[in-house]
Amino acid sequence: MSRQIRFGLFLLGTGSHISGWRLPGAIDGFEDISEITAICQEAERGLFDLIFMGDNLNADPAAHPSYCSRLEPLTMLSAVAMNTRHVGLGATASTTYGDPWTLARGFASLDHISGGRAAWNSVTTSNPQAAANFGTTHPDHARRYEMSGEFIEVVKKLWGAWDEGALVKDPESGTYFDAGKIHAVDHEGPFFKVKGPVNISRPPQGRPLILQAGGSEPGQELAAKHADVVFTVTQDRGEAAEFYAGLKARLQKNGRRESDLVILPGVMPVVGHTEAEARAKLARLMSFVDDETALGMLSERFNTDLRGHNLDGPIPDLGKNDAYHAFAKAMLSKAKRENMTLRDLYSLVAAARGHWVLCGSAEQVADTLQEWFESGAADGFNVMPGWFMDGFTDFIDLVLPILQERGLYKTAYAEGTLRDKLGLPA
Amino acid sequence: MSRQIRFGLFLLGTGSHISGWRLPGAIDGFEDISEITAICQEAERGLFDLIFMGDNLNADPAAHPSYCSRLEPLTMLSAVAMNTRHVGLGATASTTYGDPWTLARGFASLDHISGGRAAWNSVTTSNPQAAANFGTTHPDHARRYEMSGEFIEVVKKLWGAWDEGALVKDPESGTYFDAGKIHAVDHEGPFFKVKGPVNISRPPQGRPLILQAGGSEPGQELAAKHADVVFTVTQDRGEAAEFYAGLKARLQKNGRRESDLVILPGVMPVVGHTEAEARAKLARLMSFVDDETALGMLSERFNTDLRGHNLDGPIPDLGKNDAYHAFAKAMLSKAKRENMTLRDLYSLVAAARGHWVLCGSAEQVADTLQEWFESGAADGFNVMPGWFMDGFTDFIDLVLPILQERGLYKTAYAEGTLRDKLGLPA
Ligand SMILES: Cc1cc2nc3c(=O)[nH]c(=O)nc-3n(C[C@H](O)[C@H](O)[C@H](O)COP(=O)(O)O)c2cc1C
Ligand SMILES: Cc1cc2nc3c(=O)[nH]c(=O)nc-3n(C[C@H](O)[C@H](O)[C@H](O)COP(=O)(O)O)c2cc1C
Repeated sequence: MSRQIRFGLFLLGTGSHISGWRLPGAIDGFEDISEITAICQEAERGLFDLIFMGDNLNADPAAHPSYCSRLEPLTMLSAVAMNTRHVGLGATASTTYGDPWTLARGFASLDHISGGRAAWNSVTTSNPQAAANFGTTHPDHARRYEMSGEFIEVVKKLWGAWDEGALVKDPESGTYFDAGKIHAVDHEGPFFKVKGPVNISRPPQGRPLILQAGGSEPGQELAAKHADVVFTVTQDRGEAAEFYAGLKARLQKNGRRESDLVILPGVMPVVGHTEAEARAKLARLMSFVDDETALGMLSERFNTDLRGHNLDGPIPDLGKNDAYHAFAKAMLSKAKRENMTLRDLYSLVAAARGHWVLCGSAEQVADTLQEWFESGAADGFNVMPGWFMDGFTDFIDLVLPILQERGLYKTAYAEGTLRDKLGLPA
Repeated sequence: MSRQIRFGLFLLGTGSHISGWRLPGAIDGFEDISEITAICQEAERGLFDLIFMGDNLNADPAAHPSYCSRLEPLTMLSAVAMNTRHVGLGATASTTYGDPWTLARGFASLDHISGGRAAWNSVTTSNPQAAANFGTTHPDHARRYEMSGEFIEVVKKLWGAWDEGALVKDPESGTYFDAGKIHAVDHEGPFFKVKGPVNISRPPQGRPLILQAGGSEPGQELAAKHADVVFTVTQDRGEAAEFYAGLKARLQKNGRRESDLVILPGVMPVVGHTEAEARAKLARLMSFVDDETALGMLSERFNTDLRGHNLDGPIPDLGKNDAYHAFAKAMLSKAKRENMTLRDLYSLVAAARGHWVLCGSAEQVADTLQEWFESGAADGFNVMPGWFMDGFTDFIDLVLPILQERGLYKTAYAEGTLRDKLGLPA
């Protein structure tokens, strides 16, 4: 079979568009497990490879309002696992606030519960507001990545602490396990000291998938070493292709093949039967955006208070900002190319939090995705519907059949664990 | 309606009896979510009030062998929530290893997922082996309880940080929440500093239930202040009644009524149609116990290596031991009353990890439970089947109908949240 486009579904709050929840009939919260399950079942109907649940460790009313209240990712996806069968379940968890033993155990548990579908979106937590919930101060960018590298190492060791066949369970002899197949990890590093093992046997996938989304230099180094899937922010195919080639080139020195890492740019599709219909949908969405909410989110994204600036003037100096490196870079590069005002910039952020908005007829959307896929800019896409359900259903019903017809997208799930399905090495 | 007996189901590993998994047809692991769900559905068929999932933060092969590998409690119970409707879901989590923000959030999430059925078994973690998994040293008993008191205070504050009605979600005005109804908690104490709020709205129960199992002096003080349900270890009705009266007497000074705290001694029932049948079942179970496994568990329970002692001699001096205060007290008191050998003591531990074994015909078991319930020794019981499924089903099918006939046990679930069902104040 030829190379196939991969699709992830990004889930957080009511969808990526800041005002999507205001559309009549749209889902208006992210705490109702029946609604969330319905979304994930819809992803499964669309043969999506992976659900990707974002997370933050603070409730910031200034950011996307519907992102303030949500279920905790591991509990949510364990519940979702019970009513889905194939789709991967990716939960965000931080390497800055948390500990490797608890995290390794939690994801191993999700992997057992879901029959080998767990994935960990490993983030360093960029929002400095998190620190105050943990009685500490926010480490700087470099230190967060140093911690993260060690954290991931420990987690991998813990997942490997139980060999296959460690649980013998022989009722005749009374032997419950083979102690020689359960190992301490005895990790001691600059940041973590963990004896192990975990109190759960080897995860069905051996190692749950590791997802990663940091685009900075140390972020890419980390991804090249540890990540199975990378999720990126981009506004431009040229930039995406450059990033793609650069990241793939880093794999070899880690003894990995190019196909061992799946790169998925984030995209918010707005799809219609015709281009005009799609444009009208997007215009309608944008009509619900108000200055205050949008500037709040922009301020959060750039970690700089932008309220009070002239909206129709040039974009003010946003200072040095280590919090959202990849977002800032992608957005400011586009803003410069297109000579944007502050209002243009906030509209860009309001639409999909800085991610790429792809608006057009189903054919146009399919063409563009194919073009990115075939020109070395992407292995697939992390789809970020602006609202649910129809912002997502449109994409499944209108775009996917075109890609299937072109032989670019699977028509059924493969068997096996998530790792098997994606053809990733163990 | 007259006062009703409450039942919890204690879940950990393959059941309480150390060798229960060796019985033909018995469940032999605790990582398969379908088997676990089936057990929880069986509890619901028996109208159990609560599932109580124990936990430890280490994998100690010397303890109960089947307790070494298990699902993580919050992920497990979130999955169970999807296929049960009424039974309470109690997960153990530690106040010594972990942080209040993450814990408050996780249980709030389980409460949303389950429609108001979450309960937190708040433990201080007695096994010192846990420390090495968190790169730290084990605080002593007194300090663990000081930390615990503050930890629980913070968690309660975080659960209360979102007022009811904080999520407005008015599509007309675009108002998503009422910021005046979301509060920082700004906690600063000797052990924890937490700003808050959590990023999840008020749990459906307002406050998920707090369960507690520590029987020492500070353990009881903590329970009198914070717990909704207390789970005890006892081998004797007289001792249980004394504990019961003492703990209830502590409530008033905290402004609480006696009925605000439910006390459930742990019991492993072994039930037959006749006493002889029950005795035969227990003898069969005990025939599977071997010296090494049982001494391993006894050593773990007393935090003292007892291998190599004469099994038919007197019980050696067990030294001072702050790890399992309540277990040690209950077991040694019974051992003294009955002039036990070391072998007798390990048999006691092997049967139900030190908990009370109640073996007899269904009538006898029902009579004894009724006697405890009516004589001020218990509000109900935490049932600890020795093995699954029939070690549990026997109890449901043979004992519960007798208690129902006597008007001592409900014949249907009440409506509402777990807190509503148990008539506990918010
Ligand atoms: C597409 C994308 C999605 C992200 N999702 C999350 C998230 O859900 N939670 C989080 O804490 N950080 C998230 N991040 C932040 C990154 O994990 C990382 O902390 C941030 O981008 C800063 O690292 P960098 O400088 O390497 O880009 C995301 C970043 C990107 C680019
Ligand atoms: C019946 C009972 C059940 C318990 N279950 C657990 C458990 O699942 N996990 C845990 O870490 N501790 C558990 N404990 C330990 C207690 O939470 C507590 O740490 C221990 O009893 C020491 O405290 P104490 O001296 O106040 O009794 C249990 C204790 C009792 C008596």
